[in-house]
Amino acid sequence: MQVEIIEVGPRDGLQREKTFIPTDQKITLIQKLVEAGLRRIQVTSFVHPKAVPQMADAEQVCAGLSHVEGVVYSGLVLNLKGLERARNAGLNDVDVSISASDSHSRQNANMSLADAQTHFHEMVARAREYGLTIRGGIQCAFGYYENDVTDDLVIELARQHLALGLDELALADSTGMANPAQVARLLAKIIPMAEGKPVILHLHDTRGMGLANVVAALEAGCCHFDTAFGGLGGCNFIEKATGNIATEDTVYMLHAMGYQTGVDIAKVAEVSKMMESLLGKQSLPGKMYQLLG
Amino acid sequence: MQVEIIEVGPRDGLQREKTFIPTDQKITLIQKLVEAGLRRIQVTSFVHPKAVPQMADAEQVCAGLSHVEGVVYSGLVLNLKGLERARNAGLNDVDVSISASDSHSRQNANMSLADAQTHFHEMVARAREYGLTIRGGIQCAFGYYENDVTDDLVIELARQHLALGLDELALADSTGMANPAQVARLLAKIIPMAEGKPVILHLHDTRGMGLANVVAALEAGCCHFDTAFGGLGGCNFIEKATGNIATEDTVYMLHAMGYQTGVDIAKVAEVSKMMESLLGKQSLPGKMYQLLG
Repeated sequence: MQVEIIEVGPRDGLQREKTFIPTDQKITLIQKLVEAGLRRIQVTSFVHPKAVPQMADAEQVCAGLSHVEGVVYSGLVLNLKGLERARNAGLNDVDVSISASDSHSRQNANMSLADAQTHFHEMVARAREYGLTIRGGIQCAFGYYENDVTDDLVIELARQHLALGLDELALADSTGMANPAQVARLLAKIIPMAEGKPVILHLHDTRGMGLANVVAALEAGCCHFDTAFGGLGGCNFIEKATGNIATEDTVYMLHAMGYQTGVDIAKVAEVSKMMESLLGKQSLPGKMYQLLG
Repeated sequence: MQVEIIEVGPRDGLQREKTFIPTDQKITLIQKLVEAGLRRIQVTSFVHPKAVPQMADAEQVCAGLSHVEGVVYSGLVLNLKGLERARNAGLNDVDVSISASDSHSRQNANMSLADAQTHFHEMVARAREYGLTIRGGIQCAFGYYENDVTDDLVIELARQHLALGLDELALADSTGMANPAQVARLLAKIIPMAEGKPVILHLHDTRGMGLANVVAALEAGCCHFDTAFGGLGGCNFIEKATGNIATEDTVYMLHAMGYQTGVDIAKVAEVSKMMESLLGKQSLPGKMYQLLG
């Protein structure tokens, strides 16, 4: 069975790294990920450069992307201005999301959940007007520190997202709090609601449960996962946030279990080694790239 | 549902650490693990001090253990001499094992698999004679670098182990190569063979699949896991071996999924913090103790 791996390393992986990666190196990074077989790559986010300095070169990165048959590049947008920027930069795929946690929404987006929903509807309407492919996400779908996220709330937000006619629904465990029983429980409700539209799981390995959650999700019928090379990543506005599940580790497990991904682990591991060095780090959180490197 | 957590940190966790932990600190460590609610602790191994210098004080450690109602201390033994030592040190529980991999057996125990089996039978007979409780293990049950381990071999070794009348069977993923599909497949065959005797899973997180394998094992009906505080550990004779699944991370996931363990995560995390400092390390592999500490 085929599982889709969506590489979010160039965006989520780099966003809170203080060492600025030069634009040409970012373009090389993305090119190498394409060469490793990845067919969907989240390349940047269109946010204010003061909020996320690493993403200040979003337009220049997009301008340097090479067209490869079958490869889809997407950009994260947080507001209407970001949406215009992504469109002007030539991207056809945008990732738009809100947080299920009112308190996280206030901290991260400076908006209540209710205001974020209104704003989200406006963004989706505009993106549809432009004919963009829209992935609509729910951040903190598995919990936040304030305990203000319930299953019922997430299911209701998913229902509202899907009613807007999004192309895909993404559930993000931004805090790394999801556990396998919860993943199984929520996906069992939400995947049928999506009526065949892809439901993507975005996991962080903050508490070591990342791949355990992948297994629970596979059993619940999910076959789309966000991952980041070397396990880099983490939200700038979540305390003690750590990296995404590592592309290499996830793909190694999937292949061992008999799934296909089309991803060449050794080539992704080379990317991680390169970035480890560019970022001046002793190691990244991923495990497999260290064994292969 | 209750899941049994067997703490192997004092043995597997420390065995390849070069910084010698003084005997009184080892005793304190074990005492603190008992205070954290752990009821089964593998406290040492009776090996030649030249092979594993950290375990040179096995007898002294055992002499310092305090009797606590319901707490079982066990020791790893590799040969008849070790068995005598464990008995003389006052332990009633011994862990005896062979490797499913002939090449690993030759490297680790300096014996072919066939010789190791004969030797294993002798040890089990002697331990039974002494009235000791015997946990019989299979190392590298999920693979070794030489690819000389098959499902059929492991199932046959398990059958032979069980036929000897062991009290418990342990399957060890010494190389961290096990994947969830394989764990589910093997346990589905071996747990029924054990006819109610405990089947214990011993996992290493070398490739990041540790907790994913726990989830697969739980679904297959396994409810006994070896773990080590802070995720320390690794075999001295396996290339690139890394730590056991962390006690804190495993217990956190189990509790989140609704299982009971009786283990106080915060207290185990204190132990990990203490050992991190004693070992002079920047961090241990476990994730939860870093969030809690």
